[in-house]
Order: sequence, then structure tokens, then C-alpha cells
Amino acid sequence: MESYGHDEVSEAVWTRNPEVVVKPGIAEEVAAVLRLAGRHRVPVTPRGAGTGLSAGAVPMLGGIVLSLEKMDRILEIDTANMFVVVEPGVTTGQVQKAAREAGFLYAGDPCSADSSFIGGNVAENAGGNKAVKYGTTSRHVYGGEVVLPGGEITTLGGKCVKDVTGYDLVHLMVGSEGTLGVVTKIYLKLMPLPRYVVDLLVPFAAMQTAIDIVLVIMGNGGIVPTCLEFMDSTSIKAAEAYLNQKLPYGDAGAHIIVEVEGSTETQVEEDYLAIGRLCQEHGALEVFVADNVSARDRIWKARKCFAEALRVVSPVYCMEDIVVPVAAIPKALAEIERIARQHGVEISCAGHAGVGNIHAILLRKDLDEETWHEVKEKVLEEIYTETYAMGGNLSGEHGIGAKRKDYLARFMDPVQLAMIRAVKKALDPGLILNPGGQP
Amino acid sequence: MESYGHDEVSEAVWTRNPEVVVKPGIAEEVAAVLRLAGRHRVPVTPRGAGTGLSAGAVPMLGGIVLSLEKMDRILEIDTANMFVVVEPGVTTGQVQKAAREAGFLYAGDPCSADSSFIGGNVAENAGGNKAVKYGTTSRHVYGGEVVLPGGEITTLGGKCVKDVTGYDLVHLMVGSEGTLGVVTKIYLKLMPLPRYVVDLLVPFAAMQTAIDIVLVIMGNGGIVPTCLEFMDSTSIKAAEAYLNQKLPYGDAGAHIIVEVEGSTETQVEEDYLAIGRLCQEHGALEVFVADNVSARDRIWKARKCFAEALRVVSPVYCMEDIVVPVAAIPKALAEIERIARQHGVEISCAGHAGVGNIHAILLRKDLDEETWHEVKEKVLEEIYTETYAMGGNLSGEHGIGAKRKDYLARFMDPVQLAMIRAVKKALDPGLILNPGGQP
Repeated sequence: MESYGHDEVSEAVWTRNPEVVVKPGIAEEVAAVLRLAGRHRVPVTPRGAGTGLSAGAVPMLGGIVLSLEKMDRILEIDTANMFVVVEPGVTTGQVQKAAREAGFLYAGDPCSADSSFIGGNVAENAGGNKAVKYGTTSRHVYGGEVVLPGGEITTLGGKCVKDVTGYDLVHLMVGSEGTLGVVTKIYLKLMPLPRYVVDLLVPFAAMQTAIDIVLVIMGNGGIVPTCLEFMDSTSIKAAEAYLNQKLPYGDAGAHIIVEVEGSTETQVEEDYLAIGRLCQEHGALEVFVADNVSARDRIWKARKCFAEALRVVSPVYCMEDIVVPVAAIPKALAEIERIARQHGVEISCAGHAGVGNIHAILLRKDLDEETWHEVKEKVLEEIYTETYAMGGNLSGEHGIGAKRKDYLARFMDPVQLAMIRAVKKALDPGLILNPGGQP
Repeated sequence: MESYGHDEVSEAVWTRNPEVVVKPGIAEEVAAVLRLAGRHRVPVTPRGAGTGLSAGAVPMLGGIVLSLEKMDRILEIDTANMFVVVEPGVTTGQVQKAAREAGFLYAGDPCSADSSFIGGNVAENAGGNKAVKYGTTSRHVYGGEVVLPGGEITTLGGKCVKDVTGYDLVHLMVGSEGTLGVVTKIYLKLMPLPRYVVDLLVPFAAMQTAIDIVLVIMGNGGIVPTCLEFMDSTSIKAAEAYLNQKLPYGDAGAHIIVEVEGSTETQVEEDYLAIGRLCQEHGALEVFVADNVSARDRIWKARKCFAEALRVVSPVYCMEDIVVPVAAIPKALAEIERIARQHGVEISCAGHAGVGNIHAILLRKDLDEETWHEVKEKVLEEIYTETYAMGGNLSGEHGIGAKRKDYLARFMDPVQLAMIRAVKKALDPGLILNPGGQP
């Protein structure tokens, strides 16, 4: 049971073993489990690969964990309509690969792509690196087979890329964290596979100037890059140590990663030269161009190892996932730094600059249990207060889950909490599905 | 009352005068009206500019029409975050213009942009011409102030472009056709303003080959154009007559319009040359390039006058808005033609080829009232049957409204209808808002 009693949140408080784990192979089996659970009022917590970062798939009230791992087939690649139809237990990386082999792009790209399930991406509305250009998982999902808490099976949406027939229930399901239904089949839109891709690695002396470049590129430059990521100096140093490899300008204040794509070489070249020029005019220490796979991999390895690299520095930490309006990122990062300094702790930041999503990792290091909890509470309290004040929100892509649900009321008024509860109650009157999840 | 008793559906059966029209100026006034109506159980039908095409803003059960026409301010253009914040009574054209003047693009672009309100676009999740590249209205909406049926005022979402905090209530509101809440403030995302735009007008001998080009461009070509429209021969001829102007290859079987944009001239040139080449290799009679504003306007005028032009041919008609998976368009058009022939009526088709959305206008011409209704019923029945069979749906962008709600059950199972009803009841327990609308 133990391996189904936690996700990738590193703190023991967010673990709870289930009483039973079931591994259905088809939607009808999911339905049978839900009907049985409903009759006996036993909580059911759906689970993907367990790579979540908010304890959203942890059975905090016990009961049944419904693992979708056996529903792992790619059902159809429909090249004529540019759709792939998959079961929830396929890894996101497999979806990407299958699309690529058919000559298309599946644009969802969370850092965990190699291990996370597409079903989990849908449940959390995973964001990832390519959201600046392509949006989050939600934008790729046009339909799904869903098993409702009462055991009814229905298919919402499908392969129509435009559809206003009834309420948008498809996107109500996406991001509902397993609290409204169990998605057993997913219709994902594919995009043309970009033929040319270039990444730029751009070190800056200070975070503020680094982040300013986001608006310069999209505003003045008029270019929407595919990715626009940032790493602070702590996360760069942690990555260097973890990968045992020097990064250029390793002691710069911040690094920006920009990816541009296109259907011709000229187009991509024009865009990356323009972006490079803008970076140099706006304080970049250098602009490194990675136009081949191995150079690009090296850059992304440093960015993607963020969480693992910091785990070496501090096995226990608290990773936050706040999101702010893009222009507020510099202020948000400055506030986080101030709060860390004030409490004498270390907070490392990296994330998706182009969409205002900041992953802030508060390191426990050698603090004793009691002090850690005390400091953490205070630090979170202050980060959330500042985030809210600048029009930000609690989670950009990791979700609420058990970990953050008590904080929801800090970010929304009682009217919205009541709306959420009303929708939950309307679709899951027995409150069977993931009751340890949303409020 | 008469001008508030209909929208642009041309049939008398979809009109009903309200008992009262109220024109609130602020959210608190909307709330007061809803509270009063709730107390007395009087239906309230929110209304934008009345340009709808599904009788979604017609008070079919009488009561109060809540017109948002006085809430017509553009509240903020936030260039740093690339957002515009507007009230619902601003026309979509004004939003586009304000964005353009600030150096950005508001990418929502229904054919009715000059007259429709942005609030109506949100209520219907309007699609329009640029949905191939930019998606429908839903994709541009990141937040809104909403007055709930009980009179509570809350703000969902805001300026964060990535946000998984709680259920996606923003996009549950978008497209809910005034049945769940009244949106009184809207946060719309802007895009970089494309610096170069070119339109191609491409006549083909037959519809089938014309439509095939959609997949050739996006699949083989790897290019996502901004727009990809089609017009059949009836609609071309109607446009010629209406505009009193010849179109090149006016007796071609079909015309395709392709728009490409980009941040540099070279990029746009590469794309349109590639698309032109593909068209010529796949049966185009000619490829006309419109690279200046007046030439582009001429092309779009012909496409956009579709509904008005056919009204001259037949003052009464029935416009359908089915959507099918993109690859099914040729089959859908062939079926519509067959059905028309079989019933001895004329159906003209145009629409958004790149997203599978077909506007099919069944012309009454000189049929007497009774025959018209009889034929119309049969024709719709058959079109819907074929649409459903090919994985299509009832409406792509015009909405369900009073006009189509009795057909919903043909396109969704009882489980989904029950979900819609449950959500409606959860958020509007008194069933006050637009009760003549969704089921």
C-alpha cells in the first residue's frame, strides 16, 4: 500500500496509505468500483503515475485508491483530424513520441513528461514548458470518456475543434483533480510538428533585468516564443552540482531560456536573431544559441532537474507554485527574496517566466522538525499574502490537492468557494470522489 | 418592447416581447434586479446587442430582459500584461480597435464584430474567422466579474495566464448563454499585433478538392494559418449580387480564403508561397494574393456578407451551425447537398473550414408557411442525423438558445443532459436566469 500512499511532495504529513488499491482495465470496471464505493460510502481517490506535487492523489481520508496504470493504451492516431486518442495511464512522453512519429506535435510538455501519466496531466491541467505558445493541457483536450461518481459512463466532446453544444463540461473536468469524475479516454489535439527549433540560453547579472526581457520579447518584439523559462542563481548552482557540469556564466544572477520554432529555417532564424538582439540591448551578459539536439538537451537538463537538484541540497523542502500576472514577476521574486532573508531561510526559484508561474522551493536543510513547520507556515503565509495582493493565485499548474486546500479561502471569496462546493455536490452528491481533495 | 423581443434569427416563432427591459449601469444594479426577480420568481434574460443567431437572448418565457448596453466602457488596457478589461456592452469591434491602437491584437473575430457585444461573444463563446490559429472567445477570456442568480457578485480569474486554483469556473461561464450568471466585467488576453498579413483567395472547380486543401495545408504543409474559410457556389453568387461586384472565378464550385500573418515580411511570404504552391498542386484554378488592405477587405466583404446576401434571395431562412471533425467536412457538405436535392430545396453553405464549422442556410424562398415548416423539420432532422453519425455536434459557435434546445437530446445522452441540469440547478437553484435557454 505504501507506494500508493504518497505522491512527490516530500513531506511525511502528506502521506496516507489506502485500505485498498484497485487497478481497473476498462471504464466499466471503474464504474463498478464507483458504484460499490458509493453504496458503502467509501472514498475513492483516482491516481495516475503518482508524480503529483500537491498530494492530490493521496487518499487522505483512506479508502480506495483507483490506479489508472493498467489503462495504458494509445487507442488511435487520427492524422486526418490531427487527434490522438489515449487512455489515462499512458505517460505524457509516450503521447509526445507517438505524435512525433506520426509527424505531429503533442504540445503538452510538463517537466515530468517522461514519468507522469496523461490522465494526471488532465486531472491537474498540467502546464509545462510550452504553455507560452500552446497553452496548458486544457487547451489540447477536446473530449473525454468520463465515469461519473454514480458509475454512469459518458463521452464529453470529441474531435470537433469548435463546439458550443451545452456547457463546457470537458474543461470543467480538466483540472478538477479527480473530484468530479474519472477520465478513462482522452481526445487530444495535435499540432503541426515544427521543423526547426532553436533554444537560447541568456544569462543576466540580475533577476530584475532578466525578467524584464519577457515583456520586451512579446510586447516590443511582437514574438510569442514557444518557451520562456527562468532560473535563479541558487537553482543554477544546484543544477551544476547535480549534473556535475559547468553552465556558462554559472554565477550570473539569473538565466533565461527562450525557445522558438517554425516551419522554415529562415523564420526561426529571424525570430531568434531578433530575440537575441533584444536581449543584448536589455542587459544580457551573453546569448548562447543552441540549434542542435545535444546543445538543446544540455540547456533543458539544467532547467528540468530543478526539483531533483535541490533535493540533494535539502531532502525535505516545500515547493510552491504561485502564479502572478506576467508583469508582476520581478516584484514577486523580490518579495520572495525579502521574505526568505527576513526568516533566515533559503528559497530557490525557477519556472515559467512567460506565463507568470513561479516555482519557489523553500529548503528545510538542517532545521529541526518543529522550527521547519513554524518557519514554513510563516513564509507561506507571507508569500501568499503578497501573491494575492498583486493579483496572483495559489497554483499555476501543480494543483490544490490536500496540500493547499486549506489555503483556498485566502485566494477566493466565500461566493466562489460556495460555487465550487455546489458544482461538486451537483456532480458527486455522495462526495465519494477524492474527498480529501478540493474543499 | 419589440426591439428586445428578438435576435437575428429570421423566423417569427423565435420572438417574444419582454414585460420589462432594464438597463443596469453597474454590477450592483444587475444584482438588485436578480434579487428582486428571484424573490418573485420572474425570469431574467440577459441580452447583449441582440445579434445572436439562436434566440439565446429572447425572453421566450417572458419576464425581464436585462440589457447590458449601458455597461459599455473599456476599463483598462494593460500593455505590460497584455490584457484589456472591458464591460460587456462594448462592441467586439471596439475591443479590436482599442487593442490595435495600443499595438496589440484582440484575436476574437466573429463576422458580426462591428455590431455584436463582447459580452454576447463571451455568453455564446463566439468563434469567428481567426479560430484556426487563436481559438474561440473562450481562449481569450481569463477572468470576469460575474453576478450570480442570487445577486452575489464575485470575480473569477483575472490576469494570470495560467491558473489551476479551484475548478475552471471562468470557462464554465463562457458559452453558458446567460443561464448561469451575468458577466459584468471581462479580462481578455491580447496577442502581439501581427506586422504582416496576407490573404489568399483560391477558387476550386469542386467543393471536395477545395476542402481537401485544409488538411494539406496543416498536415503536409505544417502551417497553421490564421483563417481558413470556405464559400460554396450559391454563396459566392449571392455575394456577387449583394455587393454588385464580380468575384474572380465567380462560377467556380467553391472558394477558399486563407489568411497568414507573422512578425516579418519574409515569414509571411514563405508561408503564403508554400500554401499557394500546395493549392496549385491540389487542384486550385488560381491563387489570388491580397497583400494590401483594400484587396483584403474586398475578399472578406464577400465572405462576411454571407447571411445578409442570402436574405436578399430569401428573406426567411434557417441558418444552421453544425460542426464536424475537420476531415469530415467534404462528407458533411456532400450529405447536405444530397438532402437539399432530395427535398427540392436550396441550401447554401459557407463557414470556417479550418475548424470544421459549417454554416448551412436553408432558404425558404417562395414556400408557403406550412410547407416551409414541414420541409425544414425534415431537412434539419436529416442534417442532424448525418452530423451526429460523423462525430459532429449541434453548434460550433452560434449557440443552442431557444432555437436548438429541443435538439440537444439528439446529440447527447441522458447522462450529459442530467449533468447540465445538475450544474444549472447548483448555480441557479431558482431557475431564474434565461429559463427559455438551455434544458
